[in-house]
Amino acid sequence: MTAAPARAWRLVLEHIETDLLDGRLGPGDHLPPERELAASLGVGRSSVREALRVLEVMGLIRTATGSGPASGAIVVATPSGGMSALLRFQVAAQGFPLADVVRTRIILETAVAGTLADESSAQLTAVHELLDAMDAGTFTSAEFLALDAQLHVALAEASGNLVVAAMMAGLRTAIESYVRAGAERVPDWDATAARLRHEHRDIVAAIERGDAASARRLVLEHITGYYAQTGLSAVPALPADPA
Amino acid sequence: MTAAPARAWRLVLEHIETDLLDGRLGPGDHLPPERELAASLGVGRSSVREALRVLEVMGLIRTATGSGPASGAIVVATPSGGMSALLRFQVAAQGFPLADVVRTRIILETAVAGTLADESSAQLTAVHELLDAMDAGTFTSAEFLALDAQLHVALAEASGNLVVAAMMAGLRTAIESYVRAGAERVPDWDATAARLRHEHRDIVAAIERGDAASARRLVLEHITGYYAQTGLSAVPALPADPA
Repeated sequence: MTAAPARAWRLVLEHIETDLLDGRLGPGDHLPPERELAASLGVGRSSVREALRVLEVMGLIRTATGSGPASGAIVVATPSGGMSALLRFQVAAQGFPLADVVRTRIILETAVAGTLADESSAQLTAVHELLDAMDAGTFTSAEFLALDAQLHVALAEASGNLVVAAMMAGLRTAIESYVRAGAERVPDWDATAARLRHEHRDIVAAIERGDAASARRLVLEHITGYYAQTGLSAVPALPADPA
Repeated sequence: MTAAPARAWRLVLEHIETDLLDGRLGPGDHLPPERELAASLGVGRSSVREALRVLEVMGLIRTATGSGPASGAIVVATPSGGMSALLRFQVAAQGFPLADVVRTRIILETAVAGTLADESSAQLTAVHELLDAMDAGTFTSAEFLALDAQLHVALAEASGNLVVAAMMAGLRTAIESYVRAGAERVPDWDATAARLRHEHRDIVAAIERGDAASARRLVLEHITGYYAQTGLSAVPALPADPA
C-alpha cells in the first residue's frame, strides 16, 4: 500500500459521520473492520486507525482487541468522556482561561439548580447518597473534593440534560488540579469542609422546597465563595446572579 | 520498529498533556518531530501520529507538511473547532438528544444576553454588522441561517467568555442540519426571516439599554419560538425563564 494522502484520516472521519447522521450507524453497532474501511475508502489502514483514535477520545466508539464478537470498534456515544478530554486539554493548553471555566460553571450550575427546583419530580437519590457519604467520614482534602465533584455532576445529571451533565463533568475535570491546589492553601481545611457540606445541604433543601431563586443564589455563593477563599487569583469579578 | 503496545498513543497524549500543564509547551510552540517523540517515549511513529490527529481534531495543534519553520505540529489552542467537532459527532451518534442541545442553548444564550446587558462596555460592533447584513439582502433560508448562526456566536464572543463562545459555536454547528430542515418546513420563509430579524434587533436593543431581564426573556422567546414554528418535535416542553 502506498502512502495515503495527507488528509486521508479526515476522509474516514467524514465517512463515519455521514453514516451516523444518516442512521446507517448507531449506538451499539460495530464499525466495519479496519482493512475493509481502508479498502472501501481507498486509504491506508494507518489513516483508518488515526480516525478511530479521534473517535475513541471523543467518546464516540470503544475499541477492543481480539477476535470475538466484542472485538473491533463499537459505537457507544458516551459524551462526557470526550467532553472531559477536550476541556482538560484546552485548559492545559491555555485555550480556556480558568476564570471563564468558573464563570461557565456558575451559568450551568445555577440553571441546573433552578430547573431542579421547578421540577417536583426530580430524582435526587444519588445526590442524597453523596451528601451522606460526605458527612460520614474524615477525608483528606483530595478525597473530599472527589466526592464534591461527584455531587455537582450528580445534580447536573438529575436535571436530565445530557449536554449540560457532560459539560459539567468536563469542566470539573478540566479544573481539578486548580481546585486541589486551592484546597492546599486553606489553613483550616476541616472547617472549610464543614462549611461546604453545610452549603450543599442548603442548596438541596432549597431545590426540594421548590425555591428556585434561593437554589440559584446559594449555588452562586457556594462556587464564588470557594474561589474567593482559596485565593484563585485567576478568577476576577464574577457575574451577578442573573435570577 | 516492532508493533507498539495497544495503548501507546495514549502514552503520547498523556506526555503532551503533562508538558502543557507544566508549561514546557504553550501556544505557538512546536512539538518535537514525530521520530523524536517516538524515540523518547519508546513507541512507534504510528502511535505518535494517532495522538497528533486527536490533538488536531480537538483544536490543540495545527499540523503542516513540509520542512520550513512553519512545518510540523504547532500548539494553537483554538477551542471552538474542537468543541464543534465533538458536539457535531455526539449529536450525530445520538449521544446528545436534540432537545437537550436546544435547552443548553437557552441556558447559555440567556446568560450571555444578561451579562452583556449588565456590562455597559460590551463591544457589539460585529453584532451590528451582522444585523445590517441580514437586513441588506435577499437570502435563501440556508444563507440567512448561516448569518443567523454567526450572529448568535458573535453575541457569545462579545460576552468575553471563551468557554461559552466555544460551546455556543459547537452547539450551533451540531444542530445545523436540523435548523435548516426546520426552515424548509416553513411555508412563508420571508415572513419568518423578517420576524427573526426583528427579534434580533429587539434583543440587541434590550442589551444596549441595560435591561438584562428583557434581554434574557427575548432570547428565550426567540429560540423557543423558532423551534415551535418549525415543528421540531424532538424539542418538548422548554424550561421556564430562570430570570
